[in-house]
Amino acid sequence: MREERKSMLIVISGPSGVGKGTIYNRLLDQDPSLTFSVSVTTRAPRPGEIDGVDYFFISDAEYEELVRKDAFVEHATVHGHSYGTLKTQVEEKMAKGLSVVLDIDPQGAKNVMKACPDCVSIFLLPPSYEKLRQRLYGRNTDDPKEIERRLSNARGEIEQVGMYQYTVVNDDLDLAYEQVAAIITAEKQRTTRYFPVVE
Amino acid sequence: MREERKSMLIVISGPSGVGKGTIYNRLLDQDPSLTFSVSVTTRAPRPGEIDGVDYFFISDAEYEELVRKDAFVEHATVHGHSYGTLKTQVEEKMAKGLSVVLDIDPQGAKNVMKACPDCVSIFLLPPSYEKLRQRLYGRNTDDPKEIERRLSNARGEIEQVGMYQYTVVNDDLDLAYEQVAAIITAEKQRTTRYFPVVE
Repeated sequence: MREERKSMLIVISGPSGVGKGTIYNRLLDQDPSLTFSVSVTTRAPRPGEIDGVDYFFISDAEYEELVRKDAFVEHATVHGHSYGTLKTQVEEKMAKGLSVVLDIDPQGAKNVMKACPDCVSIFLLPPSYEKLRQRLYGRNTDDPKEIERRLSNARGEIEQVGMYQYTVVNDDLDLAYEQVAAIITAEKQRTTRYFPVVE
Repeated sequence: MREERKSMLIVISGPSGVGKGTIYNRLLDQDPSLTFSVSVTTRAPRPGEIDGVDYFFISDAEYEELVRKDAFVEHATVHGHSYGTLKTQVEEKMAKGLSVVLDIDPQGAKNVMKACPDCVSIFLLPPSYEKLRQRLYGRNTDDPKEIERRLSNARGEIEQVGMYQYTVVNDDLDLAYEQVAAIITAEKQRTTRYFPVVE
């Protein structure tokens, strides 16, 4: 049987510390039809992060130049640092038939959803604010002041869950992962994206 | 964490012989949040079919009376027999928080989708017309004339796949079942149906 598929842009978002990165990495490990877009950022690399793999680490001047050239699907300044998703990254990968997954903060996600209304959007919720706080402190990558700022942002971000097509609570990681994977499996079968020809 | 869910009406359709019933039965076996609506029909019971379980077997006069009373979500005459889904059946079950799955022919499905635009609609395709023919003959429940009528209907039904939200090819039954189950898992996480409250 002949069949054609349209590739997707998938947005995975949620407040800082909710576990976006873990679910995103597992998706990319498990599903060869998915790929990632390397974002640019002006923040400093965290220990272990590699330029061109985790992010393209760029200067403020380089970032401004890319904004000026309209090179981003979305770009935003969050927690004092700038981030952006390059149009070229996403377009090249989708043209190869791969679906691109973005692990992206809510501000960036909002811009992607505006720019690409047919993207698949998933918002991850923490089971409680207390657990979110524990995770942010447990991650041990930011100072307490930064963590409290992220927690305070989380309340406003969670109020905007209605902007997303899907909501998944990340309490049990395996269950949350299965739900996200099921959403992607389902979206591949959307009649607007999947065109089998019965002969 | 507190959460609320809205129950769904799920339509599984496809041409006669595509395997709707098998997938439908497995869904009901596997997922306790799903239930069925017993349809009425004016056709004669097949061997083993039980009144009130497989269908409510009714007379033409009883059927006409229900149509007159506007008692159906959908009703249709297919292959010379009348079928209908009772509003009371669906409403009572959804009010209990259960999602109702309908295993329904394309004509009935069209009417349900019109009556309930927020239903979840899945169309099953055969891998080929030849395999559909083999299945209909293998099922051994209808005479060749009836089978050829169903095959001829299938072509027109398959052309209307665009009316459904999701398309699944039933070549490998396990794979098709997994895709249908993933669609239901995904739809449960829709932000319009799933309302978790982070505290």
